[in-house]
Amino acid sequence: MTTQGMGNLVIGQSGGPTAVINASLAGVLQEANKHPMFSGIYGLVHGIEGALKEEFIDLKQETKETLDRLSTTASSILGSCRHKLSEGDYERILEVFKAHGVHYFIYIGGNDSMDTCHKISELSAAMDYELHVAGVPKTIDNDLVHTDHTPGYGSAAKFIAHATRDSGLDLEAMATFDDVTILETMGRNTGWLAASSVLGKDSEDQAPHLIYVPEVTFNEDRFLTSISHVHARLGRVYVVVCEGIKDEAGRFIGEHIVKPDHKDQFGHTLVALTAGVAFYLSNLVREKLGLQSRFLRPALVGRTFGPYVSEIDRKEAFDVGRTAVINLVADETNFMVSLERLSDRPYSFGTRKVPLLEVANKEKLLPSEFINPSGNMITEAFKDYALPLIDGLLPPIAQLKGIRVRKKLSSF
Amino acid sequence: MTTQGMGNLVIGQSGGPTAVINASLAGVLQEANKHPMFSGIYGLVHGIEGALKEEFIDLKQETKETLDRLSTTASSILGSCRHKLSEGDYERILEVFKAHGVHYFIYIGGNDSMDTCHKISELSAAMDYELHVAGVPKTIDNDLVHTDHTPGYGSAAKFIAHATRDSGLDLEAMATFDDVTILETMGRNTGWLAASSVLGKDSEDQAPHLIYVPEVTFNEDRFLTSISHVHARLGRVYVVVCEGIKDEAGRFIGEHIVKPDHKDQFGHTLVALTAGVAFYLSNLVREKLGLQSRFLRPALVGRTFGPYVSEIDRKEAFDVGRTAVINLVADETNFMVSLERLSDRPYSFGTRKVPLLEVANKEKLLPSEFINPSGNMITEAFKDYALPLIDGLLPPIAQLKGIRVRKKLSSF
Repeated sequence: MTTQGMGNLVIGQSGGPTAVINASLAGVLQEANKHPMFSGIYGLVHGIEGALKEEFIDLKQETKETLDRLSTTASSILGSCRHKLSEGDYERILEVFKAHGVHYFIYIGGNDSMDTCHKISELSAAMDYELHVAGVPKTIDNDLVHTDHTPGYGSAAKFIAHATRDSGLDLEAMATFDDVTILETMGRNTGWLAASSVLGKDSEDQAPHLIYVPEVTFNEDRFLTSISHVHARLGRVYVVVCEGIKDEAGRFIGEHIVKPDHKDQFGHTLVALTAGVAFYLSNLVREKLGLQSRFLRPALVGRTFGPYVSEIDRKEAFDVGRTAVINLVADETNFMVSLERLSDRPYSFGTRKVPLLEVANKEKLLPSEFINPSGNMITEAFKDYALPLIDGLLPPIAQLKGIRVRKKLSSF
Repeated sequence: MTTQGMGNLVIGQSGGPTAVINASLAGVLQEANKHPMFSGIYGLVHGIEGALKEEFIDLKQETKETLDRLSTTASSILGSCRHKLSEGDYERILEVFKAHGVHYFIYIGGNDSMDTCHKISELSAAMDYELHVAGVPKTIDNDLVHTDHTPGYGSAAKFIAHATRDSGLDLEAMATFDDVTILETMGRNTGWLAASSVLGKDSEDQAPHLIYVPEVTFNEDRFLTSISHVHARLGRVYVVVCEGIKDEAGRFIGEHIVKPDHKDQFGHTLVALTAGVAFYLSNLVREKLGLQSRFLRPALVGRTFGPYVSEIDRKEAFDVGRTAVINLVADETNFMVSLERLSDRPYSFGTRKVPLLEVANKEKLLPSEFINPSGNMITEAFKDYALPLIDGLLPPIAQLKGIRVRKKLSSF
């Protein structure tokens, strides 16, 4: 399979963008350009929607300068989508691939996209059409199974870790005026990103003081009690909450404020259409406890903030893209490239292939050893896992010894 | 006035923290430590509240390591406050200063703080108590008069410029799914920070497409019409809105959603206590136009994000602190150190003294030449003014030539 001009390679990007998904595309292109077996290299415009509409970008026409800048350009440059495919869509995609001589397909995405890859791969086999399919993992949610973590997570986690530490210092400075700050993170059903807020925390008094993740059922009374305790001790409370936390009945917290009835094509409730859980809880704190409270909701700002990515994340994103091509060249198909941790100190990683079926539509939750028994804080074990993914500890901050002089109208 | 041990120097930080306010403190300390005339150097704990409560930190006890890290530590390390002083408070402060042998006072803050400085200075003169008072400017709002700009603004502006560009790329990638993104910036009565969102914009199609600032009366109908026009043209709309925009009646937009009655001690309505203007407008867009809309509200994350500050801002913050000390040593008093632009290309700055009275309680609005005639975009003239303050243009991104191949079931 290394003869010349065996067919066209098509690459798509899917789902929520990240700060490093274009590094995966750069990895794919850098490797693919070495192999003459790919007659043409095309990008799908807006992911699988581009296949349905026959909209491609000829990536061999791009300049070296553009390709060089890909790894440091945030978001999905080919365009992305959230498109739930129907049965007929899969056949249409294969018809289009066939008509255009596409024999290699790489899809960069999350668990929905791995399902799409798997179904396309299976259908091509059933139709006896030669198509080599590779999935490249990507999601800030870090919720894919059979991979140590996902490209995109480290950068989003690094942003949240630093944002929490520094806005925590802001709350500390303003503690005679403000009482509570609540930061909302993304994360549909899992708390990986909310958990990352702990990575800049060095002491009990530093932010965050409470972290709420969807893996633990949320209870408003316990939440208010915890807020009161921390406030009584410190005079301030910094809370991090995942957008996807739910109560005992499985309802998203705060969703009844606006409209709970909006769902996307995958049937996921779009929590973004309410004012959000941080606003709801902020209001609750003010009304029930009489404390001043602010809410922060960086949302998309955090998932695609280009100037402060994790360098290890960028490197891994590049490598999974490159490895996908190497495996296609070696005649492999129907796999996702996954990341394997080889060692913790110093951190090193490798890649391996996982059958798409084992990854498709599955979700990896935060394991219980990463959550404290009270369900409102993240453990040291999580720090050991996640610190290498954000390039290690944040740069240290000045901390005053705080030798205080407090005397009544007497000289120093 | 350069004899040894003339009195103690006291430094305070006031109002909302910034990413570089500690650089001003570092500038003060580095210079003050050279002058033996300052018998002691003390920090006020939580600004002027520390003076009222006689709570000081002995800054001569801090290690060199701590002092070295100050310039790269976000937020106000001494603690800040928003404390409206009563008449009796000023006398109390002077009593405390007198009792503790304080003859030098530097206050790092915004226009309220410059008023505090001025009143303390006037009262000390009236009481014939020798007190040298210097104000050091600080605010992400950039709303102080008689200074080209304020330390803290450049860093917050750089964050907003980059956040807008990159989350704008996110919206572009997801434009077949999402329609509108609305980013809310801080800024009580002025649009300087919202305006900075334009600094990463290179073309008409790039984010932001619409910018709303408090200097222009907001009209919902015109807003919805503009959204429709941009959406019809591009299929997506990225909006930046300042938290402080108001309607013809002077009411904050969206404030009636929750509670409009909360004011701080200065009588400013606390817009942060509602769900915010971006949420309100996002909801309006969905209900009136049927478009998908998200809102982003980084708030404190943007004002104190340490790892991505403007280096020129950090340098200027340091220099205004240092210059305040140099002027106190030269027997000056009752002044604020202001920043003067000496040249644009290459950018260079100097400092000068401004009488506190001329700065106190005044607010600098965005001038009309920085706002387009329709009142929904920021001009190139603003870019010329503000780009040097964020270290110049953002690093370039990859832009696909986008040679699209769109054919119906035919070969490439």
